[in-house]
Amino acid sequence: MSHVLTLNAGSSTLKFGLFEAGETPKPLITGLIDHIGGAATAKLKDAQGNTVSFSDLPAKNSANHDGALQAALTKISNRFPNAKIDAVGHRVVHGGLNFSDPVELTPEVISELSTLMPFAPLHQPHNLAGVRSALAAFPDAKQVACFDTAFHRQHPFVNDTFALPRSYYDKGVRRYGFHGLSYDYISGKLAEIAPTLHAGRVVVAHLGNGASMCAMEHGRSVASSMGFSSLDGLPMGTRSGQLDPGVLLYLMNQEGLSATEISDLLYKKSGLLGLSGLSHDMRELLASDDIHAREAVDYFCFRIRRELGGLAAALEGLDAIVFTGGIGENAAKIRRRVCAGMHWIGVELDEGRNDANETIISSSFSRVHVMVLPTNEELVIAKAATAAIDA
Amino acid sequence: MSHVLTLNAGSSTLKFGLFEAGETPKPLITGLIDHIGGAATAKLKDAQGNTVSFSDLPAKNSANHDGALQAALTKISNRFPNAKIDAVGHRVVHGGLNFSDPVELTPEVISELSTLMPFAPLHQPHNLAGVRSALAAFPDAKQVACFDTAFHRQHPFVNDTFALPRSYYDKGVRRYGFHGLSYDYISGKLAEIAPTLHAGRVVVAHLGNGASMCAMEHGRSVASSMGFSSLDGLPMGTRSGQLDPGVLLYLMNQEGLSATEISDLLYKKSGLLGLSGLSHDMRELLASDDIHAREAVDYFCFRIRRELGGLAAALEGLDAIVFTGGIGENAAKIRRRVCAGMHWIGVELDEGRNDANETIISSSFSRVHVMVLPTNEELVIAKAATAAIDA
Repeated sequence: MSHVLTLNAGSSTLKFGLFEAGETPKPLITGLIDHIGGAATAKLKDAQGNTVSFSDLPAKNSANHDGALQAALTKISNRFPNAKIDAVGHRVVHGGLNFSDPVELTPEVISELSTLMPFAPLHQPHNLAGVRSALAAFPDAKQVACFDTAFHRQHPFVNDTFALPRSYYDKGVRRYGFHGLSYDYISGKLAEIAPTLHAGRVVVAHLGNGASMCAMEHGRSVASSMGFSSLDGLPMGTRSGQLDPGVLLYLMNQEGLSATEISDLLYKKSGLLGLSGLSHDMRELLASDDIHAREAVDYFCFRIRRELGGLAAALEGLDAIVFTGGIGENAAKIRRRVCAGMHWIGVELDEGRNDANETIISSSFSRVHVMVLPTNEELVIAKAATAAIDA
Repeated sequence: MSHVLTLNAGSSTLKFGLFEAGETPKPLITGLIDHIGGAATAKLKDAQGNTVSFSDLPAKNSANHDGALQAALTKISNRFPNAKIDAVGHRVVHGGLNFSDPVELTPEVISELSTLMPFAPLHQPHNLAGVRSALAAFPDAKQVACFDTAFHRQHPFVNDTFALPRSYYDKGVRRYGFHGLSYDYISGKLAEIAPTLHAGRVVVAHLGNGASMCAMEHGRSVASSMGFSSLDGLPMGTRSGQLDPGVLLYLMNQEGLSATEISDLLYKKSGLLGLSGLSHDMRELLASDDIHAREAVDYFCFRIRRELGGLAAALEGLDAIVFTGGIGENAAKIRRRVCAGMHWIGVELDEGRNDANETIISSSFSRVHVMVLPTNEELVIAKAATAAIDA
């Protein structure tokens, strides 16, 4: 029996999963190590998504990604002592201009991916740290990178460029788009369950702590609400989303903020948290009576509608909307408030189906189909890792 | 006979007009002094828009706005020696949070407007320099400010805020929107010639060297493509339009650009000029066979369509589109390329009417009306100045 391990290393987190290799890899266990660099904790879930353990990690496993990975591997081997890990699949945020598919992590590839750090300084270094830890732990396994940008690399020029001097486009300042593993999964799922919609014009809203939207035609991305970085587009838990570049000039000139302070403001203190002054967590905001919490939710829903209009224009029409991600899959209230203002584009919600989180939540007479599909980024990574074994 | 003077002072330009005061002020002459601070030139046009003189200005009139205004007044009095200027109307780019109507320029108001310079550092200082020149030249006339932001001050919260910490909203970091004098004129014109459309959901595209779009309901602005500064939204002659805030962080961190250098890049070297590498002028780009010129025009047209989808979402539907501004009024090719991708939203262009720059350029069966209306910002200023005399 061959197994694959999936790794998704963030700045202070390590998500991992163990799968039986195969055309549709079978999940055995998934886990999250949080607060790396501080007092780290580890949570494990079984194949059904039930939490099977939650524990504090000792100091030696808390300090860095190497230690965290060791803790994850120990937990995995305790439960699956006979697991034979033949491939490790890594989520890597940025594949730059050259990677529009998963790639085996040779020293040359790792070196090329390192040059992309300036494009994603908050994520790429951690992703590559995870790669190095895994190379040390599994020197004989195939190591495969799956990129959040890859699904979007075929955007037409008008959705790939900014109106800057051409030299910036040439050196890679482009609208990459992110959450590509999620969109890839949703595109595949749509092809399976709704092939005529998959062949049409679909906007997928990946709404989680990070949030973006993707316009798909024939299952391929033609535009994204995210651009060069993971800041653009929709407001997120703590990220600003769309922002007038003049605001950054104001922050520099009038408030005297440094690049580090602006980055901290826009990535960590803005979005739902900034607008509400209360929380980055949609569940808390929806439960609150505070006027600023309500306004933050209003803004979130409105920007989704506004972006949806823009992406429909990119598609020259709209056949279906798919909600996914933590908020998209679970927050019926948010889906209702987004769709309430979308009659003009052919959306008619079925309140009962929506409240029940059904797969189709539009009415039987809605011109535009509205769906809820749970995403599964780990499965996309596990498939790519499996393919590397077979290759 | 009472007269009013209109003044529109830019960084190196002074536009002016002389009108007979009245409910509909009658234009007598308009002019443009260009290249102030360098080798300034003056162009005069008669009431029919025909150029009646073009000349270089002597050094004493070229150095600054005071000198340029003196030159303008001399030219006016040469032609209209009996003009009795009872009011001067000024275009002022920023009225901040407090001014949603024209206002008489008392010392207190001027002082308040000076505090807004950080919001529009490239324009507000020049506007106020023009005000001071006119106060010295016409100490007994009423002086009235008309604001580019005023028409947009009633935006609902979701179209007024960014997702930043609430303190920024409170101190005025908002989506002001600009080109308000133009939109005000178009709204009034629509009320006059198409009252049922005026009462509906209209997107106005003001496309000139500066470019923005405004969503109107019942003739009032509910959203704009421009936000805090005149950089956001559509790409322009030399301005970037919409830009991922992560690109500015990249310019600061990786390219080491200063705020001044970034401002220079985004205001003066980007947009159509940056993308084409050829020209900021749409006429030159349309005449060119260069691939980069074509791509710049493609991007311009696409971003108009994408913004139109977003503004239609803000209006929850669309009844009419109005093109105005230098490009909007004259570039049939651009209008055709924008509308070619808008069938999905109910737009059907009549090619013949479009080529002839007719007022209605949609087909008789188009669900959405598409119109071309020449704007007249000076008339809006002249009306406000007249009202101040009567007050």
